[in-house]
Amino acid sequence: MTKALLLCLVSLPVMAQRPPAKIREYRQVHEHALLSEYVSLLSIPNIVGDTASDMRKNAEAVAEMMRRRGIQPRLLPGPTPDVPPVVFGEVKVPGATQTVVFYAHYDGQPVIPTAWAPGTAPFKPVLATNSIENGGTIVPFPKPGEAINPQHRLIARAASDDKAGIFAILAGYGALTKSGGKPTANLKFFFEGEEEVGSKHLADFLTNYRDLLAADLWVFCDGPVHQSGRKQVVFGCRGDVNLEIKVYGPRRPLHSGHYGNWAPNPGMALAQLLASMKDETGNVLVKGFYDDVIPLSESEKKAIAAIPFFDETIRQELGFNRPEGNARLAELITRPSLNVSGLQSAGVGRQAANVIPATATAALDLRLVPGNDPQRQQQKIVAHLRARGYYVTDREPTDQERLTYPMLARVTMQKGYRAQRTPLDLPIAQRVVKAVQSTATEPIVLQPMLGGSLPLYLFEEILNTNAIVTVPVVNSDNNQHGENENVRVQNLWDGIETLAAVMQL
Amino acid sequence: MTKALLLCLVSLPVMAQRPPAKIREYRQVHEHALLSEYVSLLSIPNIVGDTASDMRKNAEAVAEMMRRRGIQPRLLPGPTPDVPPVVFGEVKVPGATQTVVFYAHYDGQPVIPTAWAPGTAPFKPVLATNSIENGGTIVPFPKPGEAINPQHRLIARAASDDKAGIFAILAGYGALTKSGGKPTANLKFFFEGEEEVGSKHLADFLTNYRDLLAADLWVFCDGPVHQSGRKQVVFGCRGDVNLEIKVYGPRRPLHSGHYGNWAPNPGMALAQLLASMKDETGNVLVKGFYDDVIPLSESEKKAIAAIPFFDETIRQELGFNRPEGNARLAELITRPSLNVSGLQSAGVGRQAANVIPATATAALDLRLVPGNDPQRQQQKIVAHLRARGYYVTDREPTDQERLTYPMLARVTMQKGYRAQRTPLDLPIAQRVVKAVQSTATEPIVLQPMLGGSLPLYLFEEILNTNAIVTVPVVNSDNNQHGENENVRVQNLWDGIETLAAVMQL
Repeated sequence: MTKALLLCLVSLPVMAQRPPAKIREYRQVHEHALLSEYVSLLSIPNIVGDTASDMRKNAEAVAEMMRRRGIQPRLLPGPTPDVPPVVFGEVKVPGATQTVVFYAHYDGQPVIPTAWAPGTAPFKPVLATNSIENGGTIVPFPKPGEAINPQHRLIARAASDDKAGIFAILAGYGALTKSGGKPTANLKFFFEGEEEVGSKHLADFLTNYRDLLAADLWVFCDGPVHQSGRKQVVFGCRGDVNLEIKVYGPRRPLHSGHYGNWAPNPGMALAQLLASMKDETGNVLVKGFYDDVIPLSESEKKAIAAIPFFDETIRQELGFNRPEGNARLAELITRPSLNVSGLQSAGVGRQAANVIPATATAALDLRLVPGNDPQRQQQKIVAHLRARGYYVTDREPTDQERLTYPMLARVTMQKGYRAQRTPLDLPIAQRVVKAVQSTATEPIVLQPMLGGSLPLYLFEEILNTNAIVTVPVVNSDNNQHGENENVRVQNLWDGIETLAAVMQL
Repeated sequence: MTKALLLCLVSLPVMAQRPPAKIREYRQVHEHALLSEYVSLLSIPNIVGDTASDMRKNAEAVAEMMRRRGIQPRLLPGPTPDVPPVVFGEVKVPGATQTVVFYAHYDGQPVIPTAWAPGTAPFKPVLATNSIENGGTIVPFPKPGEAINPQHRLIARAASDDKAGIFAILAGYGALTKSGGKPTANLKFFFEGEEEVGSKHLADFLTNYRDLLAADLWVFCDGPVHQSGRKQVVFGCRGDVNLEIKVYGPRRPLHSGHYGNWAPNPGMALAQLLASMKDETGNVLVKGFYDDVIPLSESEKKAIAAIPFFDETIRQELGFNRPEGNARLAELITRPSLNVSGLQSAGVGRQAANVIPATATAALDLRLVPGNDPQRQQQKIVAHLRARGYYVTDREPTDQERLTYPMLARVTMQKGYRAQRTPLDLPIAQRVVKAVQSTATEPIVLQPMLGGSLPLYLFEEILNTNAIVTVPVVNSDNNQHGENENVRVQNLWDGIETLAAVMQL
């Protein structure tokens, strides 16, 4: 990579190329129709497994949005009839030599309707002056001819996550083609309906429709733009694997008076074990924990350094004084993590009793980065336990094991999955960066990887591609997964321009 | 204390003095009536606060048992009408110069009737060939004239804890006086009805009836004899105080992917904090933790050394390989303890989520020995937290505190109460020892203190006496507090002889 390109990545200059005025004009003329179409889509319950929800109705509505724009949709059936279908579409562009697949998902997170603010409901979209959390009040939808305030929020489940992805992709395509433009690559559309339940059948879909899905690049439209409001392109995500460690004391909870000081306490043993795994600056002490990590490239390091610094703002909002690690958030999430996600032993508060508990359990989640293997990373934890004298089993200990081993732990390991990271300097990914930048007035943010996890490795493994980028469109304060989920109208409008530009990469 | 007396304490020789044959004969002749009277008492529900339970009926039944033996009972009212009365009685003995009060309680632990074995029920006493847990089967009550098998168990709530205490005291008194003997001291009887709910109004009773309760010695009849089956006399118990430590991470649970390695994890912080409090041989590292302890006297040490060694049997039954501390159980429970009685942070198992929890809580209980003060002992823990850099508060932290202090803990302290220990060589206590030994064929066990806690300090503080001993009668495998609670018939018969002897101390 040349030095010039590096500079370009670190702080992308404002491009001369501006979004074709025609796309913006098209959107301005059709705002009411676009908003109305989106409100219809948001009105269809989309919680997988929920009785009021009909996933097929969602799929049909998405298919209808395609037809309206001249795309012939197909509902790809899953391995069993109860699996929500993938809505697939394809646009062949004469002369184009490359193919780009656009991914989004039409299912949403579960809802607790009673938790939603008065006047709102998960599947009855309303417009508000701001997010409910920031004091927004509900306003009527503008009548035809009235202006739509772009700062207003549309409030509904999946308004941001991730029907907004489907909207931006299809409305972007429509605005592009109906305003006289045309894509520069063949396009495919892949909208799944199980993302929020762990994309349980994604591997089946990728395997069963491998040929149909052949492409040079996958573009994911999911998640929010940067907290600063800048657009961003994301190149990967951490993997994840969960394990549980259960340590044993006496066979049953004991009277802490009659036996205290004599019977071994599993809560204290677990505390000592966990404390041995991390120092007080967040450095994991498990042997070899960082050994497999593929280091960040120079361009990735520079991209991270260029990300707007929001740590202080977030820290104050989250209410703590000192971060765990000695680096900025954007850098720390590129490292593997060992997180204590839960602790339990007997009871506390009203459930507290004066007992020596029989067991103590810690739930851990290990986030993985490129180079880490889920099984190998878990085995390092097991080796750590053994090095500290633990006998490790994967089931409840037998009477004989209890009497034989002074330190006894049951470790329950999960399958998990590995990280995925697209090289920042991959030429086709760089064309996405340029396309997105062309629609922005400020330098866009390049994230080498998200801290969270998505099963993007499946695309690498099954489809044999490492060209996967994420181009998010929604606002970061969208209350995704919570009550009163919202999307800012301007983010929908910006998303149309962003996605239209990517289709001309 | 002379060397001869010491030897006597360490291993009391079998006394020439045997239980007056007349008491045993009296019991043998009246076995059916005694058993029938006890079954009636056990048939009255006695759970404080339970709707099916009428505590006054229990008190009246106990009063009737007194009347049957020529004692005039009084029901001492508590501070409010809903407090179960204390059943009080008094026997003045011409020529006696000292007064002994006998304590037991007529209330029982809560029950879960569905957990009781088929054919049993908490308040429908049955007879079984053994404890249910050891394979006992239910047998009919013997008809008049049939022998009562003394190995059989009577199964009912409070069969052991602690209506057996009331039975042994009153039947012991009856057998003594009706077989021609007489007490050597003035006797008082104090049977309370709130022991299982923490003796909430005991201090009121002791204060309000201080003059009525004037005495030279209190004899408690509660708890089991030694696991070896030997009779025992207990000289005290540990005190107890509970506290909770809650440490703080971010204001709300965070996505462990987006923030893992950066946001501080309270579960790990709590583990590090707890681990700093104890080494791996059970030694508490909190500064000054053992400082206030009044050491055991030589006679107490020798008494402990003479207690039959049951540690290995219990350890195997409880299913662990290595005790926490480097001494025998009987000695370890004479030391203060720091026990982690509960841990909680977010969820584990099915409740586990990939979060950085907002808080983590540990429930601790500190058992106290003579010299420890509950508040001072808790303050040592607080000082330990401060020495490790924690800001300690006694309520939820404010926003300002969250942002100001890198380590933040809320400590909730309880009032608790201190230990009580009667000097082993107190002359009146030694007379109890001799009396109990006179009824036994094996050396009795002398326990300087129990590991558990009872508010015996109230007797010291309010009545200004340190002459308090416990003379238990029931079998140790009685399932006290659990389902299928039982008492071995022979323990009831032995209890009559033991208590009658103590009345002639």
